[in-house]
Amino acid sequence: MTSSKNIRIFDTTLRDGEQTPGVTVSPDQKFEIAMKLDELGVDIIEAGFPVVSPGEIQAIRKIMKQGLRAEICGLARTTKNDIDVAIGSDLGYIHTFIATSDIHMQYKLKMSREQVLEKAIFAVEYAKKHGMIVEFSAEDATRSDREFLNKVFKAVAEVGADRIDIPDTVGYSTPQYMSKLVTDVINSTGLPVSVHCHNDFGLAVANSIAGFQVGAKCAHVTINGLGERAGNAALEELVMACQCLYKIEHNIKTELLYDVSKFVSSAMGIIVQPNKAIIGENAFGHESGIHTHGIINNPLTYEPISPELVGRKRWMQAGKHAGAHGIKAILDEFGITTTESQLKEIVERQKIIADAGKSITTSDLLSLASEVIKNKQFDESFKLNDFHIVTGLNIIPTAVVKLNIHDKDFIASETGVGPVDAALKAIQTIAHGIANIKIREYKLDSITGGSDALAEVSVKVEDKEGNIISARKSGKDIVVTSVQAMIDAINKTMLKKLIEKGNKVK
Amino acid sequence: MTSSKNIRIFDTTLRDGEQTPGVTVSPDQKFEIAMKLDELGVDIIEAGFPVVSPGEIQAIRKIMKQGLRAEICGLARTTKNDIDVAIGSDLGYIHTFIATSDIHMQYKLKMSREQVLEKAIFAVEYAKKHGMIVEFSAEDATRSDREFLNKVFKAVAEVGADRIDIPDTVGYSTPQYMSKLVTDVINSTGLPVSVHCHNDFGLAVANSIAGFQVGAKCAHVTINGLGERAGNAALEELVMACQCLYKIEHNIKTELLYDVSKFVSSAMGIIVQPNKAIIGENAFGHESGIHTHGIINNPLTYEPISPELVGRKRWMQAGKHAGAHGIKAILDEFGITTTESQLKEIVERQKIIADAGKSITTSDLLSLASEVIKNKQFDESFKLNDFHIVTGLNIIPTAVVKLNIHDKDFIASETGVGPVDAALKAIQTIAHGIANIKIREYKLDSITGGSDALAEVSVKVEDKEGNIISARKSGKDIVVTSVQAMIDAINKTMLKKLIEKGNKVK
Repeated sequence: MTSSKNIRIFDTTLRDGEQTPGVTVSPDQKFEIAMKLDELGVDIIEAGFPVVSPGEIQAIRKIMKQGLRAEICGLARTTKNDIDVAIGSDLGYIHTFIATSDIHMQYKLKMSREQVLEKAIFAVEYAKKHGMIVEFSAEDATRSDREFLNKVFKAVAEVGADRIDIPDTVGYSTPQYMSKLVTDVINSTGLPVSVHCHNDFGLAVANSIAGFQVGAKCAHVTINGLGERAGNAALEELVMACQCLYKIEHNIKTELLYDVSKFVSSAMGIIVQPNKAIIGENAFGHESGIHTHGIINNPLTYEPISPELVGRKRWMQAGKHAGAHGIKAILDEFGITTTESQLKEIVERQKIIADAGKSITTSDLLSLASEVIKNKQFDESFKLNDFHIVTGLNIIPTAVVKLNIHDKDFIASETGVGPVDAALKAIQTIAHGIANIKIREYKLDSITGGSDALAEVSVKVEDKEGNIISARKSGKDIVVTSVQAMIDAINKTMLKKLIEKGNKVK
Repeated sequence: MTSSKNIRIFDTTLRDGEQTPGVTVSPDQKFEIAMKLDELGVDIIEAGFPVVSPGEIQAIRKIMKQGLRAEICGLARTTKNDIDVAIGSDLGYIHTFIATSDIHMQYKLKMSREQVLEKAIFAVEYAKKHGMIVEFSAEDATRSDREFLNKVFKAVAEVGADRIDIPDTVGYSTPQYMSKLVTDVINSTGLPVSVHCHNDFGLAVANSIAGFQVGAKCAHVTINGLGERAGNAALEELVMACQCLYKIEHNIKTELLYDVSKFVSSAMGIIVQPNKAIIGENAFGHESGIHTHGIINNPLTYEPISPELVGRKRWMQAGKHAGAHGIKAILDEFGITTTESQLKEIVERQKIIADAGKSITTSDLLSLASEVIKNKQFDESFKLNDFHIVTGLNIIPTAVVKLNIHDKDFIASETGVGPVDAALKAIQTIAHGIANIKIREYKLDSITGGSDALAEVSVKVEDKEGNIISARKSGKDIVVTSVQAMIDAINKTMLKKLIEKGNKVK
């Protein structure tokens, strides 16, 4: 299935990823994630740790039944019971492990080296006797005595282990050390070797690549770098680094990376930070003037790869560092042309706002531009005249909204799952009737501090022609801020139309 | 100031970090962050890009006046104006740059190699003539022709540049390539060399270390890995990797890392994902049974470093993978002792809940334990009998809450900056009177999807004795969910007291 120059991706989002503290997914969610991973093209899916719970077993059985393209694997300690339960889950491939570092053997296992060696041999022999494909991991390999580690790997290879995995359990390895370990193990066992790197010092991707460079055939990874503590090597980073920087071939459909990342983030409830490589919100976002200027002339000046390669789109923002080039590009996008002096005034005004520590959205920039250009057509818009909401215990959240559009008043009332949902539905009811505008996405950034901290809301709306326009607003009342962001997004949509119309008339 | 085996940390949180799309900080916030960075022990603070705005200049002047221990530096293009503005900002150290890659010269600068070389020489000569310390960066160095790059570096060294920086502008380098470039530049210029690595493929830390290993003296980094796109090398990861894995000395007070990270995240409004190395919420959090078992016996089994080293504390969670060892440890923490069979029943019950895809908080575990142990004292608690809130345009957000405590009803009404603030204040008013409980932190995780997506709220409360207890709740109505989380946190506090009392009576 894979050529000799290819590496294999062993995805453990459903096992090590699910061990992320606070994460629990139901058997159905596990199944859905497995479908996505298979579509993405991972070579192996570690579907779970069967002995943990009946739900794990149920999920694994359901995944096995599906007959996926990917190989399906399950985790088991080196005990008869763990392996029996794995076999009973319909698995044909197990990943069995026992710790080989002195600290783990002494404090956790309370076993001697001889006992550990014995258990490892037992587990591999037992699983092979039951016809399983066996991948053997020496837990905490990177902190293990190298001689003992090799002895264990050699012994399990002799009793039939099919694959060897070298876990850097606490992320303590360096690329140099990983190269040495992988070289040792290939030499002593002759088996295909995997690496399983944790990211405690930010080196998981570099350590995995170091393994590939000396002959490792496979890496254990997770979507979004989920996993115990700081997580595992991130699939998306490793795969793109292999492809773009090392010309190592793989079987991943990279254009699905962003979608799968979003799916897993949402299913597991673990957010991705904006400055996360490949899949973070900002990975293809630009603000500073020098960067936007470069991007406008040739995106490759400030992007290592084209965003489409990973299923994404680039975006530019009118922030403090935007400079005249960036501002002009954004105004151009909306069909707004300015004179040199108008542009200069817009740039100066937005820097004054930015210096006050306020973030400037595209919507703010458009209002600023309308003031400077003094285009009368910019005045028309949706005005929020009145709204109020009620919610509580045993009260169905309800909102009443009154909007003034082209000097006419419109009122709508809606209920929802919460006050924000009700309010946005009411606005949508009006907007849909008047201007065919629908809400596409609602996003609230996390709030930390107190219940009086600032909330940051962004809303994306879609007009009749399928244009998607977004607006961002911050404020202390989550509900009011959400309503204002929605109104802003609608006004931007209207503004765009008016400008287009104006341009045609001229 | 630094011994020859030491490396220097050039922090660019206030320059490259502030260029994170959407981030803008006021001059006062810049000043506060600079104070924190100085306290942390960074060797150089890049305080901003003076020509960008008057606020930048104002912030830099204020920082310069403070007479910090760290060197203060500002960015300038290779133009007379940029350098003049930098000098006018009271700076004594400038970081000047021009791009040397063909793609940047052709598409962005629209200049020939000769013109670029000339401008680089001009800028360094001009700044040196004005008595500045000059660090010269060849932007996009890692995608530049190596011969031309060396020619530029050699030329600026000859006209007096003090330091050379090699920026991996789009994160395209590998550790191997960075080693080669740094070696070249040290050989051709004899000057101290810095590296400036971006994290587009997750290799920023590895690339920076590769630089150090062949003689680079300094790395440009940011707190939390902020910066353009996927950001820069994260200060906290690089410093801890140097210290723990490479025995490279530095001047950072590591025990302040977590506090500074939180400060910057809050000031810049960019969240840190839970699975971020060193400073992420989960970096020292444990859930799975095997891990918690190891941690209880010896934390080093599953932690590469002690959390105190970076100013943190470890925590354990009662999740699906917790297993009997983990559950027992958490119950122990609350002074709850169980029989073997009770523990077994608690573990089984919590696995059933987890298999349904529900996350299990410590609070849930305690309720479960109370059911199994059937301790009558567990029954007493705060019960939410009724509450409703109103808010809207020109309406002061108001909440009315009715709680039942020990069979007595308590009603309170409060206003706030928003509905959540009002509701939590009302509960607090009652709780403070009855049980001396105050709210310490409110946190709402980001919501993406629609306005009907699930919100995840956590609340921390403090009792009279200063114990801090937290609870987490998810639901579709932000306000109702926040209220429930608050009530949960209070009940956990009460439960803790009752258990303590019970234990003393027995």
